[in-house]
This record gives sequence, structure tokens and C-alpha cells, in this order.
Amino acid sequence: MKPLRPPPHTRGLPQHRQRRSGPRPMTPSAFGVAGERWIYGRHAVAAALANPARRWHHLAVLSGQESEASTLLAAAAGPRRGDGAPLRVVDHDSLAAILPEGAVHQGLALAVEPLPEPDLADMLRFVAGTPGRRVIVVLDQVTDPRNVGAVLRSAAAFGAFAVVLAVHGAPPVTGALAKAASGALEQVPLVRVVNLARALDRLKQSGFWVCGLEANAQQTLADLELGHQVAVVLGSEGGGMRRLVRERCDHLARLPTRSAQATLNVSSAAAIALYELARDQH
Amino acid sequence: MKPLRPPPHTRGLPQHRQRRSGPRPMTPSAFGVAGERWIYGRHAVAAALANPARRWHHLAVLSGQESEASTLLAAAAGPRRGDGAPLRVVDHDSLAAILPEGAVHQGLALAVEPLPEPDLADMLRFVAGTPGRRVIVVLDQVTDPRNVGAVLRSAAAFGAFAVVLAVHGAPPVTGALAKAASGALEQVPLVRVVNLARALDRLKQSGFWVCGLEANAQQTLADLELGHQVAVVLGSEGGGMRRLVRERCDHLARLPTRSAQATLNVSSAAAIALYELARDQH
Repeated sequence: MKPLRPPPHTRGLPQHRQRRSGPRPMTPSAFGVAGERWIYGRHAVAAALANPARRWHHLAVLSGQESEASTLLAAAAGPRRGDGAPLRVVDHDSLAAILPEGAVHQGLALAVEPLPEPDLADMLRFVAGTPGRRVIVVLDQVTDPRNVGAVLRSAAAFGAFAVVLAVHGAPPVTGALAKAASGALEQVPLVRVVNLARALDRLKQSGFWVCGLEANAQQTLADLELGHQVAVVLGSEGGGMRRLVRERCDHLARLPTRSAQATLNVSSAAAIALYELARDQH
Repeated sequence: MKPLRPPPHTRGLPQHRQRRSGPRPMTPSAFGVAGERWIYGRHAVAAALANPARRWHHLAVLSGQESEASTLLAAAAGPRRGDGAPLRVVDHDSLAAILPEGAVHQGLALAVEPLPEPDLADMLRFVAGTPGRRVIVVLDQVTDPRNVGAVLRSAAAFGAFAVVLAVHGAPPVTGALAKAASGALEQVPLVRVVNLARALDRLKQSGFWVCGLEANAQQTLADLELGHQVAVVLGSEGGGMRRLVRERCDHLARLPTRSAQATLNVSSAAAIALYELARDQH
């Protein structure tokens, strides 16, 4: 498998800058306890190792897959932290024990430190220097880590710049989120903001058109003439966007489903919106 | 919450016809053992109860949600089977114990019998009598029940007629699949075929254009002039379509992602394809 490289549009984004007080310490043992420190699955592990900004500790691999694991480690671009062997061969039960129930690990789990997350100002500075249509995704109250991961994956596929979430209520970066993102966690930054409504104001001041997706809207997304910079906002599947978020939108649009009751999964809706916004440019 | 009704396009589809030797017996106790006999989550339970073709046994509900559960039961359209109270109040641990680890049940779990699944001939007879573009989705080697559920949901949202799968390799109808489908399992039939390549031949004989999605294809799906009847084929995320399936396709098309490496989740790809095929009709 060809290791993934961050696409050109994310190179230069200040993911390296450490904005937190520093990652929490990992246990020095072969396996820690926290699920969020492990990235598992082939694509997710390969992409994490290929990311120069990703600090990693060691790679746990099922017996029999050492050769695949060595190839991945040989391509590691980020700084290694911690002691001991970088490659640790484990049995199935040990691997299953450190990962969430039912995790599809494909025999590979990488102990990592979290990526520093750029803030909105970082992202806006970066976006300002790029050509072409600039799209970002804003998620309001989306709590399922698999949905957030799948949105990241679609964002990477269609060249969106970031996924913006609220600090409170949004899921932390877990192995399940990284697995669903299938490597895109290393490519598209998650930007967490304290107040989502205020972040939308800030985006508007920076020239973004803010378009909220809502099943009952009059116009479809394809009907709208959206400009060069678009922030597409999706709410939770249960409650949609919160009122204060909804009121910040310049436009409300729907996707042309058979009826307002025929709803889509939030990650499917995001994929379609990103496709429509990319398609519209061709 | 408004209970979902089967959309007009699936009414009349012979879901009622029992093609198997009959459902396996349920245990008469409050909780059985098999995960696939429980449908959980608000939308999935409401849709199952609203489906006249769905046989159900009883509804387990968390204490405090009796009123919501009674409303759902009052709208039950399908025949009830089994003895005892139709509504059974349970505590959180008991409910969690009968469902898969981490199941988001929202306090509701319905013991059901599986829906009869129409065969390809049933589906083709039904499709022949309907107006408008006729789209079906064919999944080759897609094994994750959540992906199959999400595809069903998008198929319902965009009015596709069926999701066709191979008998072998495709996941059974579990609660996790039904939950991801969010009610669409009651609306869009799953059609299982012994041989997927032969099923594509049959579809072609019936006037369907068979279009396979492949990341390396020359043309995009939007570039193609597809006819009135379209079968869109998606392969597994790892291996894509199998050769014998791929060779049956009249067209191969890609979605316009940034690169062939920037892949989409199979349910996101299906959502986009269904959107594009519906959009193209407007």
C-alpha cells in the first residue's frame, strides 16, 4: 500500500505549533490505557506515520505482519518519542485488549501523541494564501466520532480546508474517529472553537459565505450561487443546528431528497455537500 | 416524532411474501439472545412498527419512556406475534445486556422477525411498473453492517428501489444495520443474490445500464449519459469490485475527488452517486 502524504493544500498549515500545555504523558509500558492514544487500521496508521507533524511512540503489530509493519516504519516522517523498540509484536488478545470493543485494527496499532490543533485564526491565515474555492465544514452538535471521522475523510477527498467543531460536545480524537477518517485526520485539521456562533461571525468577516444545511429549506444547495469561500454548516441528526448557529447562516439550503422526512446520515450529507461544492467549480 | 411510512415507490413491493422456510423461533422470555432479532433506536423502532410487513413480538423500553413507547405501539401496523405484554419496561443494564456493546438504543428495542427479502425477479417485476428514473445500488463485498445500513438510508432518501448484495459475504440484517439505516430497512428492500455477476447480466437484460464506481476510471459519473434505468455498483473499500463484477459493467466512472488515492467511505460514495443520479433528473 502506498503511504498517504498530506495533500498540497494542507502543507504549510501550522499543525506543528504546539498550542496546548503539551500532550499528557504516555505510560512507558507496551500498552497504555487510553483508547485515544492508539491509532489503528492500515490506512490510519500509514497516514499517521507519513505525517511529519505526528509524534509517535511505537507500533504494535500482530505476529505475521512484521514485514508490512517494518515497511511502514521505514517511511515514518514524524519524530519518535519514548523508549524501547519501535516495533512490538503482540498476539491477538493483547491487541484487542488495548483497543475499543470491535475495533477493526487489521493487525496494526500505533501509539501516538495527539496532533496540535490549529485555531481559527491560524486556519484563516493559511486559507487566505490559497487559490481556488475554499470550503470548510462546520459541525454543530455532531457527537458520534465515526461521523466526525467520515466527514474528515470526505473533506480530504474533496479538498476542504478544515472541519470546525465546538470545544464542548464534540467528540475527542479517538482511535475510532481516526479509523473512520482513514488517514484524513493527518490531512485536514480539526479546528475547535469555544463558541460556534461567534466563529461563524468571524468566518463571515473573513469573506466566507455561511450556508447551513436544513431539510426544510426552500432552495437546494445546487440552486445557490455561492462565492469563492464557503462554510457549510451541518447540525446534529436529532436536533439540527442550534438556533444561534442557524441564525448566523447567510443561506439555508437542503439536499434534494424525496421529502424532508427522508433524512441522510450527517456524514453522507456532508459528502454530498462537499461534492456539490467541488462539482460546481468544474 | 412522526412515524415513518413506507414511501409510495415501495408500496406494493412483495415484501410480504414469505420466501424462506419461515423465521426461526424467538425465545418466549423477555430477552432472546440473538442481536439480529432486536431493532433499536427511535427511528428504526418507529419505522419497524409502522411497517405493515414487519412482524414484531414486543417492545422493551427504559423506565421513564413508557409514554413514548405507548405512542409508538398505538401506531403499530404490522402483525404481532408471541405472548405476554407487548410493552416491557426494563432497566438500563438489562437493555444494554441484550444489545451489542455500545449500541445507541435511545431507550427502545423492538423484538422482531426478519422481513422477507424479495428476490431479483420480484424486484424487476415491481420496477417495471414505476415511472421516472429507476436506480438500484449493487454492493460487492461490502461487509460492514453500518455501511450497508447507511447505503439503505441514502437509497431511501433519493428514491432508489433496492440494494442488491451477494448471499455470501454480505452482512446479515442486524440491529446495527437497522440502526444505521434509521428506518430505511423498512422502506428499501435488500435483495440477496447467489451470484452478483449473473445478477448484473440479468439487470442488463432488463434494460438497466450497469455503472461501476472506480477511483481510477476516466470519466466521472456526472459525465456519463445514463439512461432511464441505472444500477450503480460499488466495491469494497479495500479491494474494489471483483474482476467478474467489474467486467459486467457497461461503464466505469469515478467521483471527482482530488486524486485516486483520496478515497471515500463506501456509504459516502453511494450517497454522492445517488444524489448525482437524482440531480441529473431535475
